[in-house]
Amino acid sequence: MNTQDAGPGSPAGGVRPPLGVLAVVGVGLIGGSFAAALRKSGAVGRVLGAGRRPAPLALARRLGLIDEAVSLEEAARQADFILLAVPVGATQSILEQIGPHLRPHALVTDAGSTKADVVAAAYAALGERVGQFVPGHPVAGAEATGPEAARDDLYQGRTVVLTPLPENTEAARLRLRQAWEACGARVVSMQAQAHDAALASVSHVPHFLASVFMGQVAAAPDSDQRMALAGTGFRDFTRIAAGSPEMWRDIFLANRQAVLDELQQVRAALEQAEDSLRRRDGQALHDFLERAALARRFWGSRSGL
Amino acid sequence: MNTQDAGPGSPAGGVRPPLGVLAVVGVGLIGGSFAAALRKSGAVGRVLGAGRRPAPLALARRLGLIDEAVSLEEAARQADFILLAVPVGATQSILEQIGPHLRPHALVTDAGSTKADVVAAAYAALGERVGQFVPGHPVAGAEATGPEAARDDLYQGRTVVLTPLPENTEAARLRLRQAWEACGARVVSMQAQAHDAALASVSHVPHFLASVFMGQVAAAPDSDQRMALAGTGFRDFTRIAAGSPEMWRDIFLANRQAVLDELQQVRAALEQAEDSLRRRDGQALHDFLERAALARRFWGSRSGL
Repeated sequence: MNTQDAGPGSPAGGVRPPLGVLAVVGVGLIGGSFAAALRKSGAVGRVLGAGRRPAPLALARRLGLIDEAVSLEEAARQADFILLAVPVGATQSILEQIGPHLRPHALVTDAGSTKADVVAAAYAALGERVGQFVPGHPVAGAEATGPEAARDDLYQGRTVVLTPLPENTEAARLRLRQAWEACGARVVSMQAQAHDAALASVSHVPHFLASVFMGQVAAAPDSDQRMALAGTGFRDFTRIAAGSPEMWRDIFLANRQAVLDELQQVRAALEQAEDSLRRRDGQALHDFLERAALARRFWGSRSGL
Repeated sequence: MNTQDAGPGSPAGGVRPPLGVLAVVGVGLIGGSFAAALRKSGAVGRVLGAGRRPAPLALARRLGLIDEAVSLEEAARQADFILLAVPVGATQSILEQIGPHLRPHALVTDAGSTKADVVAAAYAALGERVGQFVPGHPVAGAEATGPEAARDDLYQGRTVVLTPLPENTEAARLRLRQAWEACGARVVSMQAQAHDAALASVSHVPHFLASVFMGQVAAAPDSDQRMALAGTGFRDFTRIAAGSPEMWRDIFLANRQAVLDELQQVRAALEQAEDSLRRRDGQALHDFLERAALARRFWGSRSGL
């Protein structure tokens, strides 16, 4: 649908959609799914796409995720609402490029999986305009990547964390919350620091451990024989280790201190459990396994995942 | 089907099924599925069930997994083929009880997930009859337990490891291999020691790590907030930690040294990866993550799981 004739933000029919013109920087799984969900909900008018590489933009347009591929500057000039769905390391440079051209009422958010570094990048890049940037993180993902993996139901029932800045108006926070709710997500707000510590624990450390373990098995002299005997437990425990090395390297570096702090806690717990096994202390082993099993079963029954 | 009239091991029709009368000690997921698969394949005649508790035996009979619940002594007197599907810690006591009553041609096997301790138990319990015992381990499982979880396709495409003794005849090994192949499994043979080392690596250590991690997250002061942000990566990485604490305590104790040796290797790999992160060495981090990702993707494409 090309609605250019009706003017930015207005569908040909008449009523202006609540979020106006959407621009998505990075039209992969995360950005493409956001565009698809908002378009389906009727919350956005035209959808612009921007990004480093032409091929995904062309594909996103063919798939109907975006109406037009534009430059960053053009996206800033036209959009009422901008989502950055790019590696967190690219945030500052993109904000520097769009900052001078932002419409005064435009809202900018991101989808980065670390927040303290994104907040620092936003202050550095936007200066007194930083109030227009509300940081966010949809806790959703899939093995798949690219525009072809985008789905309008990716965020259905998933959690989105907002880590608003003191400079964000109540209206801006509300507008962002409503956008994610229109995608079917559950929205929670917290401090960037608390977000990063929690994600270090439940997302980054599991990835680190799964990768360390997978690498250790693969490096063993008899790894072929071992892996021939690996079953469904191994499959699930190591699944995340197949993820993008580039993306995860950036996440670990961006959230370095929180990940290191958390790994230290895990190593202390590991040493204690190993000690029980070394001492053949069946009771202590049982208690440690039972606490873990009960916690996991409880989480499983509540999480809906 | 009650085939008692036709005599043990012979279906009413005539041709004697190749494995004769089957007795399963422990009629849960593993034993019940073995009985169901062999019955479906036509490889067994009557199926007897034995076990400590009457309730699962009654249920297994109602579900048609077994024809009759009998004592261990009766099972030994009647059966041509006996599978022990019980916690490995119970192996020696059961072998002591059935040993004196075994038919001279009867074959006994087990399904324990550790083998060196089972082999030691077999020598201690069976003495000069140890040649009748061929140790085995179907590398299959599921979260579900009990006769109600038994399925005739549980072993389809799964791997079964045999760790034969020097005292086993070629005919006995072949008979056991054919039984598992009749269940749809792929059969491999190796030394008990090699089996235990491989399983320590790809099964026991992942369970240990998942449980340590899950316990550490659950013990954190802000565990509720953390777990509210846990996604599908966390779900898969921790799934095995929900398993039976009793069963896993026994497995860890039974395979203690191999698990401790392997954990030491994992800790060394973990320290190296942590060191890369501490030094902000993006190249080393990337290389470690890439090796793990490539190994996991390769395994995923080959394992069929």
